Order: sequence, then structure tokens, then C-alpha cells
Amino acid sequence: MKSNHIKSDPWKIIEDSFDPNKVEASESIFSLGNGAMGHRANFEEYYSGKTFQGSYAAGVYYPDKTRVGWWKNGYPEYFAKVLNAPNWIGIDVYYDNVKLDLNKVTIQKFLRTLDMRTGLYTRQVTLTTHEGLNLSIFATRFLALFQEELGCIKYSVKIHNVAANIKVCPYIDANIKNKDSNWDDQFWELKSQSIDENFAMLHTKTFKSEFDLCTYQGVSFYKNSIPSKEYSLEKSSGRISYVFEANLAPNEEVMVEKVGGYCSSLQQSQQKHKKHVKKIALESLSKGFDALLDLQKSNWDEIWEMADISIEDDIKAQQGIRFNIFQLNQTYTGKNPLLNIGPKGYTGEKYGGSTYWDTEAFCFPFYIATKNESVAENLLNYRYNHLQKAIENAVKLGFTGGAALFPMVTINGEECHNEWEITFEEIHRNAAIAHAIYAYERYTGKTTYVENKGIDVLVGISRFWSQRISFSKEKKKYVMLGVTGPNEYENNVNNNWYTNYAAKWCMEYTCKRLIQISKDKPKVHKTIQERLDLSNPEVIDWEEKASNIYLPYDKKNDIFLQQDGFLDKDLKKTLVIPSEERPINQHWSWDRILRSPYIKQADVLQGFYFFENHFSNEQLKNNFDFYEPYTVHESSLSPSIHAVLAASLERVDQAYDFYLQTSRLDLDDYNAEVHEGLHITSMAGTWLSIVKGFGGMRIKDNAIYFSPQLPKAWKSFSFKINFRGSIIELSVSKTNSLLILIKGNPVSAFLNEKQVIFNSKSDVK
Amino acid sequence: MKSNHIKSDPWKIIEDSFDPNKVEASESIFSLGNGAMGHRANFEEYYSGKTFQGSYAAGVYYPDKTRVGWWKNGYPEYFAKVLNAPNWIGIDVYYDNVKLDLNKVTIQKFLRTLDMRTGLYTRQVTLTTHEGLNLSIFATRFLALFQEELGCIKYSVKIHNVAANIKVCPYIDANIKNKDSNWDDQFWELKSQSIDENFAMLHTKTFKSEFDLCTYQGVSFYKNSIPSKEYSLEKSSGRISYVFEANLAPNEEVMVEKVGGYCSSLQQSQQKHKKHVKKIALESLSKGFDALLDLQKSNWDEIWEMADISIEDDIKAQQGIRFNIFQLNQTYTGKNPLLNIGPKGYTGEKYGGSTYWDTEAFCFPFYIATKNESVAENLLNYRYNHLQKAIENAVKLGFTGGAALFPMVTINGEECHNEWEITFEEIHRNAAIAHAIYAYERYTGKTTYVENKGIDVLVGISRFWSQRISFSKEKKKYVMLGVTGPNEYENNVNNNWYTNYAAKWCMEYTCKRLIQISKDKPKVHKTIQERLDLSNPEVIDWEEKASNIYLPYDKKNDIFLQQDGFLDKDLKKTLVIPSEERPINQHWSWDRILRSPYIKQADVLQGFYFFENHFSNEQLKNNFDFYEPYTVHESSLSPSIHAVLAASLERVDQAYDFYLQTSRLDLDDYNAEVHEGLHITSMAGTWLSIVKGFGGMRIKDNAIYFSPQLPKAWKSFSFKINFRGSIIELSVSKTNSLLILIKGNPVSAFLNEKQVIFNSKSDVK
Repeated sequence: MKSNHIKSDPWKIIEDSFDPNKVEASESIFSLGNGAMGHRANFEEYYSGKTFQGSYAAGVYYPDKTRVGWWKNGYPEYFAKVLNAPNWIGIDVYYDNVKLDLNKVTIQKFLRTLDMRTGLYTRQVTLTTHEGLNLSIFATRFLALFQEELGCIKYSVKIHNVAANIKVCPYIDANIKNKDSNWDDQFWELKSQSIDENFAMLHTKTFKSEFDLCTYQGVSFYKNSIPSKEYSLEKSSGRISYVFEANLAPNEEVMVEKVGGYCSSLQQSQQKHKKHVKKIALESLSKGFDALLDLQKSNWDEIWEMADISIEDDIKAQQGIRFNIFQLNQTYTGKNPLLNIGPKGYTGEKYGGSTYWDTEAFCFPFYIATKNESVAENLLNYRYNHLQKAIENAVKLGFTGGAALFPMVTINGEECHNEWEITFEEIHRNAAIAHAIYAYERYTGKTTYVENKGIDVLVGISRFWSQRISFSKEKKKYVMLGVTGPNEYENNVNNNWYTNYAAKWCMEYTCKRLIQISKDKPKVHKTIQERLDLSNPEVIDWEEKASNIYLPYDKKNDIFLQQDGFLDKDLKKTLVIPSEERPINQHWSWDRILRSPYIKQADVLQGFYFFENHFSNEQLKNNFDFYEPYTVHESSLSPSIHAVLAASLERVDQAYDFYLQTSRLDLDDYNAEVHEGLHITSMAGTWLSIVKGFGGMRIKDNAIYFSPQLPKAWKSFSFKINFRGSIIELSVSKTNSLLILIKGNPVSAFLNEKQVIFNSKSDVK
Repeated sequence: MKSNHIKSDPWKIIEDSFDPNKVEASESIFSLGNGAMGHRANFEEYYSGKTFQGSYAAGVYYPDKTRVGWWKNGYPEYFAKVLNAPNWIGIDVYYDNVKLDLNKVTIQKFLRTLDMRTGLYTRQVTLTTHEGLNLSIFATRFLALFQEELGCIKYSVKIHNVAANIKVCPYIDANIKNKDSNWDDQFWELKSQSIDENFAMLHTKTFKSEFDLCTYQGVSFYKNSIPSKEYSLEKSSGRISYVFEANLAPNEEVMVEKVGGYCSSLQQSQQKHKKHVKKIALESLSKGFDALLDLQKSNWDEIWEMADISIEDDIKAQQGIRFNIFQLNQTYTGKNPLLNIGPKGYTGEKYGGSTYWDTEAFCFPFYIATKNESVAENLLNYRYNHLQKAIENAVKLGFTGGAALFPMVTINGEECHNEWEITFEEIHRNAAIAHAIYAYERYTGKTTYVENKGIDVLVGISRFWSQRISFSKEKKKYVMLGVTGPNEYENNVNNNWYTNYAAKWCMEYTCKRLIQISKDKPKVHKTIQERLDLSNPEVIDWEEKASNIYLPYDKKNDIFLQQDGFLDKDLKKTLVIPSEERPINQHWSWDRILRSPYIKQADVLQGFYFFENHFSNEQLKNNFDFYEPYTVHESSLSPSIHAVLAASLERVDQAYDFYLQTSRLDLDDYNAEVHEGLHITSMAGTWLSIVKGFGGMRIKDNAIYFSPQLPKAWKSFSFKINFRGSIIELSVSKTNSLLILIKGNPVSAFLNEKQVIFNSKSDVK
């Protein structure tokens, strides 16, 4: 199943041959992004073969009318999706008036690299046309981190054997299509186009959501490295192209430096777009590609300085983890609280670029540990800013009094998902949002965020849980009926242990923080009470309910039960499933999956992961050994959680096996689906497998703990963590483990349960 | 909520005023059908107001591409729906070259009647046009029972005040639309049109399913009752109109007798269509409308002779039950095993004219008790003929070895429904199909149907159940996980008592019949074993499983539990639901409905209805009193079952209340939805409320039992039943009950537990 198309290298992604069947996969893998825009690695020039064109402007979405078989009350009417945006990377090439098309020539050499150290994408092609012309293309580009509206391309065509007329035509084009359209709606409206000598722009507007987007390009042409102004213009509705034509002798070349990109109404008001991007374009052109690339390199240096994980003696693992870290940084930079992390980032259309619980459950630790606090705060603010919509969403479902249900899938805070068993029932997402607030407090040690903003979210969530549970006279406990847990291969179950436990924890945490605030900052507490119309009896009610929630448990196996009735299932382990029936979600009908014991992704075990220090090692062992054999890991988010837990149980080989299932998921295209885009959010899981798994990192009682284990295949590994504003580095080799304070004040840290005494910059074994 | 638009009359449906807002509702209520075609009561002449045009040719469907939000393995790709067919009833009218439109004139008098005794529909309108012309329309029509391709219309226009030029233009038209189209597909293709002097036809073909349909008309015109040949022709693509024009003085009239209808490839091969319908048309025209109506009357006389239920002193109840019996007879005549009974019959597009479990669970007793056996046999054969497709359907879901899962919704045996919780999980439908076979045996006393055909269906169904259950080590019983019971307000529950019990019964009944056949007819038994590849161990396996199925039970209340965990619910009775939140399915989100205790329609109680003599009166009482207070009756199929059971408990007043909820559901338009079409299958439930409810009819041990109770509001009621080929009539008055043998041999019958001794035609108190 595994593809070997991508070559191994510690810092580079390399494709050294051309395979038309891999074009779409490589378009995903070589995607570029800078948090504000993202592009699949589409060729600049025209390509008639199978390709999935995709350029995305972050946060610019269209509310596509939902397609649904049978409507249910409370369903949202639209699914907001980030759109394929007008193309600014395009450069058509003509030789002797024939349009160059890699699908129609003989390719001699094809080398594509993505240098993760700098974010530079390069493609070199040598080819022979049907007519016998031998030529080379050299194309390189990057999306600037230092200027989020800017992308830079250098593109040259060189002739080898005979003289030829060559035209190079960089263009911008608003006549684009979305693959993922439910009703073939038109998404974009062309408002205006504007052309100057070497600068052109298109103003488009999304229908309904009315986002303005300016797509622009600026160009400088060269013949044999000598600048030339001898170019002309072609335009049609929504498409503007510069045309540079030259008669070349063998070994001569033409080159264009093109800058371009987007400016959306999320970034600037539409009136300012032209002035803003024209300034960027002209200044960038005058600096030139190479000078801009230097700036880009220093930006990436800073990122890697903090975020890199180095692994010795396992080049595939090294490449894999760096690819994951690279893509997470390309997707989200934490500058804008309107943005978030979609499961496919800006590498494809699936999942519509929307936000899932993946952000809080899997990505949050990565960003808080490798960036400064403001990035994590922006992730929290994303939900804080959506609180009112979460309350409105809960009202739609019959809840009252400020109860908040955050959406399963969203861009702007409104629910977009339409399957009742998910939309209405997979409510554990609320707990992940509370848990991210808790994680923020543990990582930063700062209480003010919760006092000022976080408590509003926590109260809304606790109000939801306190209404969502109901009292069972039969069990004499509060039960939670009709939910879908993290294991989506069970729907509408009663008393999903994870959800019940998480609800209990949310209410307890909210109560605890409120009590703490009332003691420490009575004035703040009063403000909170007034702002949220919160009374003491309401808080007491949560405490009472939290203390009396039913938590299904099986005494015989000493395990928590995933849900009521789990032991009634035909408990055959995953080993008995014929391999040709895996993954089961592609082969079995839904009812068969539902009544099977098979677990899509960690569910009870997700609780052990989240609430790591609530349970004994014995409990973890029992539950892990019970549930792992039923887990099919058909979510890319699953193996990493099992890796972390296996490592907790000091089963490093098993943890390593799980690690391998995610670290190169996209590079090796395990599921034959990378052409649709990358699994961005599960990449954070891979980071967790190393940091919390092999590094054994935990935070408790205001201290950071490490209990490292080295996978057999590795000589060493190391990574850095931002803990309470200080940067510490863990290095683990076959012989020893080191913890070094890289920056900041000494913090309370433990290595293998022994406290580490840092000097200003200290290390211990 | 109730509408008083329809006037009361024991035999007629009457609308005596024109209300543009009631046009669509009346189009449903006044629908005509003859089992082979059906028409909404659309005006013959053009109408620009709100109208829902519908003419349906039975069994002619289009496989409309399904609309679904999230695809699941095993979903069918299309939803077969009976289509709006070309219009043959149309007659345009022009006065002085202005097209008559009831929406644009002043209506003086409007009287519409449907005489249920004869199936004759009549409309009389007197109106004044904007121009001041006073005229009357008299339109009457029926669909022939004696010739299923034939409909007859008599239509006249009379002038009152001033002279005017009148044109009457009867037409056929293939340019029609379907309201219920998922993807705006074209459904019909025009193949050819053919015109003779007074006969015209259109040959259309459905796309994909390729049904040929011939739509035809024949016409005779009269001026002041004198036949006239002075008419002309207008045609355009897919539309053929005769035009009869006359200058009329006051009190003169023009009249057209029009015959027309459909002949589909289900009835005749396409090559024969023209000859066939032309003969029908010309012969019918020569007989004339009044002679044809006489034939029709004698057909309906025969039906009513057997099927009528008379009720004294309650005109609304009388009209209600007759309307239900009338519509059931219009929908299904039992002549063609390719046809069945759609929930809306041929009165609207909703539910696509498809077959649901309604047929076996609710309609079957009506047809077997009021028709001869061949009608019931055709209903059984419908499923028997679909057995192979039911086996293929089960294979799609992972079942093997001839296990059969009949579809939830179908026209041709293939599943059409696409909600996993219904399609894959509402599997109790299989039991209803077995139960109809059982009912057939009890009503007819004949064993040969099961021996020759029914056993194949029973074996397929038992194979399904034996694989669908699984052994719970926890419960040491066979359990059935992940089902949806008759109460669709619960999805994906474990151990739905009704489904478990019905599965157990199916396997037991199949085993019992196989053993019986092996004893009585060993050769037949051997043929069955060979035909079905059936071994003794397989049968023993069913017996073992049937004897060891888990049946959830609550000792404290002495009730069967609707499903595992039902008592964990917040058991507030329906009385606490605010009336503005009823029906809950229009006001509550799906999760809220699911976790509530509210029951859409009889579920445990459906089992008490089906398996009436398996349980004691005490058990019935306990379960009825427990579940009724949670039942919201948001299916039109629900109150009738509760009516029958309340009557069993000798609670005649309560039974009467339930009866009222269904008997005039459409006439009084309780749910403000009659414009979509009539609730045909629930009409059979109303019949059950009287016959099995107030009549207390039961069949057991080869005898028929009655224990009648008279609702207070009624002076008397009576009905006839076909039991084992003999017709018996029950008459119940305030003073006594009589059972009379009308026809056939004496049968074993009991009235109020006392055996009735019939002479050739006897009665007892």
C-alpha cells in the first residue's frame, strides 16, 4: 500500500521522476502555505493531465447550501467552505506558438524538491517536445512568512538544441472551479480588474458571504539575465496575462520573476487593497527574488530553532517528523484569531477548511509548546469569539440559560455539519475546548486568561453539560443518553464513559476555578457573576451533578466501559477481520460497523490521554490492554494517542509501531488518498507521539516532567519546549538523557522523576 | 387545527364553496384511482392559482438519483418514484378567445362531490368573467374499474346572460413536471405522437427505467346535445388538442365526452398500445358516458357489498370510514402482483409511490378480509417475487447463505431508502412480511401457499435473523444490537423488545411449518430442502437461537422494555410537553427526541397487537398503561393500534378517542398536510380499529372470534368478513350483536366467546 515515490532526506522532500498518476498526490505533498494563504503544488504552466487545482485564501469561505437526504430540525442550512481562489501562480509557456503541456511531451529529467528549512519549492524539468525541441524549465517559489500577502516565483525556460520562439505568459485568472461544490453554485463574482505596466489585479467577491479578495501579480522579465520591458498584455474577463516573447538560440533562456498573492477583506478593507498590494508588489520586484528568499530563510530559521525535532540514524523518521512540523507551521501562524487549523489545512478542499475538535484535542499542545503564548491565546480566542454563536446553537437544540454547544465543524462559529449522530450527539467536542483552556493554564501558569475570557467559555460549557445529563431513577445517577463519543463507529449510545467523564471534569474544573477566583479576586468574581448572570446555587448544582455522574465500569475486567452495553458485543479482536475487509469503513455497511466492537479511534483511551494523572498505571494498563485489540485506527488521529499511552506503559516498541502509522502517513501515502490533501491536524499527533510519547513529557503541579525512552531504531532524538516562557531542550541518546535550559528563567522540571536543578543554563543526566 | 371544509354525508364527499387556499387539499381528497392509474382532482381547465398537478400510472417509476449528505456503504444509489405522468384529463376553455381560469373570475357557485358509492366525481361551477359573461361548467369523471386503461369525462359549458364564442379544447400533454425531483432530471422522453379524427395518443418513455407509456384521448362533441364533427386540431411537441368552437346564445351549451387514460408497458407491450387503447377509446365513445357509468356503478356495488362498514347515528364517522374503504379500493385492486400500496397511493408524490412495511402490518388484513384470497396472494407474491433482491440486499450488508432482508422502501424489490438508522437498522419489516404469510394461513386455512412459495420467504427471513443476532457472553443470551424499532424516535438501540420478539417468532414459525411439512408432505419437504439448500442442523440452530433470545423485561413494572436502558430515561409523560411544541418532530432537534421517552408509534404495543394471543390480559394492561402515556402518535399508523388494544382491554371510550384520531385524518386535515396527498396505508388502520377494535375480531385455532363493543356515539355498526371463503356479517347495536352467515359454508365462529351455530344462513345473539 505504501508509496515510495518521495525520496528520503533529513530536510528535503524530493520527487526525482515524473509519474502522471502521482501528479495530484505530489500537488498535496509539495503544498506551500504561510498561514494566510496556501497553494497546492500545481504546475505554473498549463497541464492537461489529471490535476487538482487549489489555491486558498485563509478565512475566505462560501456558505455552500448543504446537501442532505432527510432533514432534521436544528440542522444548519449551509456548510461554510474555504474556496479555491483565483489563480495567481499561473505562467503559460508557448514554444513556436505551441502551448507547452507536460502531459504532451517527453520528459527527460524531472526533479522537484521542497526545502523544509526555508519553505522553498523548486522544480526542474528537461523535456523534448513532439516537434523535437529540447528545453528546460526551472521554477521555484515560496510564500512569504514576513509578508502574508506575498508569494514569489522565479521561472525560466531555456532552449538546448535548436532555435525557437518562446513566449512566457504569467497571468492571474478568476475563472476557476471548486471540486467540492454541492449544487454547482457560482462562488465568485468578478467585480473589477486593474492593469498597470507590470502590475495587475482582479477584485472578486464571494457570493453570499461577500468576502472581497484582491488577487494580484507583478512581473519582471529577463532574457539571458538582462531585464527587458519588451512585453505585452492580453486580457479577457477575469484573466490578465503579460506576454513576454523572445526568439532564442540554443542555450539561451528567458526568465520571469513574478510576485503575487491575495489580500482579502479579513486583512484590509477593500478600498485599500490596490494600494496595499501594489506597494508590496513593486517593492518586492525591486528587491528581487533572491533578497526576498533571504528574509524567508531567516523566518524559517526562527521557527526551526524552536520547533525542530532532530532524530539521529533514522532518516525516514527524521524527514517524517520535520514534514509534519513544517506543514503545521505553514497552516497556522497564530497571528489572526479569525483563523484556525482545518484538517487538511490549505492543501485540499475536503472538510472545507473548517475547524474541528482536532484543534484543541491534538494541535493545541504543539502550538503552545513551540510558539509563544500569544499563538495559543489566539486559538483560545477563536472559540471565545464564537461563544455567542455556540449559545445560539444550543438554543436551537432546546437548551437554555446561556448553555453553549460549540460546533462540530465551523469557520465562523456557526455549525456546518449535518449528520444528526455527529452534529447533535458528538458533543464531547465541548470538553476538548475546555481542556485547551486547562492546558493553557498548565503550560503558562497564567490565571488571567481564564479570569477575563476563559471562564465565560467554561460556564457556557458547564451549563450545557448540566442540562444535557438527566437523572436516572433506575441508576440513581446522572446519565447522558444519546451521544456519539470520539469513537464514531458507535452512534447514539448511552453513557459513553469518555463523554460522561469529560462532562464531569468540565463542571468540576469550572467550579474549582470559580471558587479560586472568588477567593483570590473577589471583585473579578463579582464581575463574572454579573456578566454571566451566574448564581452560587447554579455552581453548587454543577458540583452536585459532577459528583454523581454515572461512569460505566466493569468490575471483572477492571475497565471503564466505553458505553452501556459494550460487553454485549461479539468481542472478536481486530485480528480476525480479513485483511481484504480493512479498512472496515470502506467495506462494511454502517450497521455492521456499529454493532461490531471495533473502535475507530481512542475513546476510553482518549480519556486516559486527556486526564493522564487521574488514573493509576494499573488502570491504564487494564484499559489499554482491553481496548487496543478492538481498535482499528481508521482515524489518522488514533495511533498517536495509543503511542503516547503505550510509551506511558513503558512499551517503547509498541509505541514506535503506532508512531510509524502516522509519521509518514502522507509522505508514503498509506491510505492512497494524499491527492485529496494532507492530514494536517493528525500531524500534531505525530509530534505528541514523540514529545509526550518518547519524551514522556507531562505537566503537573506547576512542573514539567520528562521520562524519555529511545526507540531502538534511533541513535538519539531531541526537541525543545516552551514552558512558562522558558525554553528547555530534551536530548535523548542511547546512553543518557539531558535537559537543558536554553532560554529564560529556571523552571521546575523533572527528568525521570528527579528534579533538575538549572543554573542560568544547566543540564543534568 | 381541524378543517371543516368538507361537508358531511354518509356516501358523498362534498365541497360547496370555492377557496383558493383549499384547492390543493381538495385535489388530494377528491382523488380518483382504479388501481392502475390515479389522479389528483385537478381541474380539467387551466388554473393559474396554487395547484399540485398529479396523474400517476401505477408501477411506472423513475430511478431518481438519491440525495444524501454523507454516503454509507450499502446505500442504494437511487430512489424509485412513481412519476407525474402526461396529462390526459385536460380541457382548456376559451370564451371570446379569452382562456378561462377559475383564478381570474368571480365564482357564484362551486359544488364538488365525490360519490363514493360509484366513484363518480362531479364539479359544478357558476361564474362571471371580468368581461361580465355568466357561464356554468359541469364536469364529471370517473376511472373505470371494468377497464383499467380507461377514464371517462363529461364536460359542458353553458352560457347564461349574453351570446359568446366558446371554445372547448380537450388535450393530452406530455410537458409536465414532477415536484419531487432530487436533481431536476428529465423523467420523460417523448417518442412519438399519433392523431386520428377523434383519437390521439402520445408515446413517452421514462429515462433510465425505460417504461413505455401511452397516453390517449378520444372525444365526442355536442352543441346543445347534438353531436358535432365540426372541430379542428392543434398540436405542438408533446401536446395534442382538439378544438371545438361554437357561437352560443344565452342558455346554449357545448359539451365534450372525453375518454382517455394510460396503457403502460406493465400492461401491454408497446407495439400493441395503439391498437389496444384505440379500440377502448372508440368503443367507449360509442357506448357513451352514461352507459359506461352504469358499468362502473355495478363494479362499485360489488365492492361495497363486501367491504362496507355501516355506522348509524354518527354521520361523520360513517363518512370517514367509507372514505377510507373507498380510497383503499381505489389504490389497490389486487389484480397485478407488480403493484402494491404506497403510503399516499396515487394521490401525491411523497414517498414516491413506494411500498413500506405498512402493507403487511396494516393493509393486509383489510384486503384479505374484504376481497377474495387471490388479492391477498398477490400481496404475498409481490414480496415472494422480490426474494432474490432481498437476498442480494442482505449480501450487500454482509449476510450470507440466502439470508434475506426485504427493503424498507421499494417499488421493484430494490432498496430505495437512505438513512442508515432506517435502511440498515429498521429490520423489523422482515417480520411483518412473515406475519402476513401467517395471517394468510389463518384467514384462509390453506397450507399450500406456504408449502410452494411462502416457505422460501420464511427461510430467507429466518436465515437473516439467525445471523443478525449475536451471543452476549455477558447476558448468556442472543442479543440484537443496533436496531431501530417501529418507534422511529429511537435509533440504533440494543435489544428492541419488539424486534427481538418478532425475530424469535419468525424463526419459530418457520421451524414449526417446516416440521409440519416434513410430517404431512415429506416429498414437498425434500423439494424445499433441495431448492433452498436447507439442512436439518440449520433448522435446529434457529430453534436453539429462538429459544434463547434476550427479551428485555422489567420486573418492577411487569413490562417488556422497549429496549435496553429505556428506564434510564427522564420518564416524564407526554402531558408535560407544551402544546406549542407538538408535534415534537416539528419542534425538537433529533437528539432531543431520541433521548426523550416519547414514542412515535406503537412499538412494544405493536408486538401485543401482532402476537395478540401470546400474552395475558394482565400483561397487555401493564404494558399498555406503561407505554401509552409516553406515546405521541406522530405516525398516522399509531392510534389505530392503540384503539385495537384499548378495545381489547374493554376501554371502549378510550378506543373511540384513538379511532377519532385517524378516521377523518384527511377529510378534516388534522395535520394541515392533506395537500401533499392522502394517508392511504393508515386508512387500513382505521378499518382495523373498527373490525379488530370495536368488533373485537380475532382468529385463533381455525375459528373466528368477535367480542363487540359499541361506542357511545353510535346507534349501531356492522361489517362483513371473508373467513375461509365464507362471508359473515357482524351487526352490533345498543341492544344486541348478531353474526350472520351471508354466503358459503358454516365456519367455526364465536361471538362473545360463545360458539355460533350457523345453519345455511343463521344468526345468534
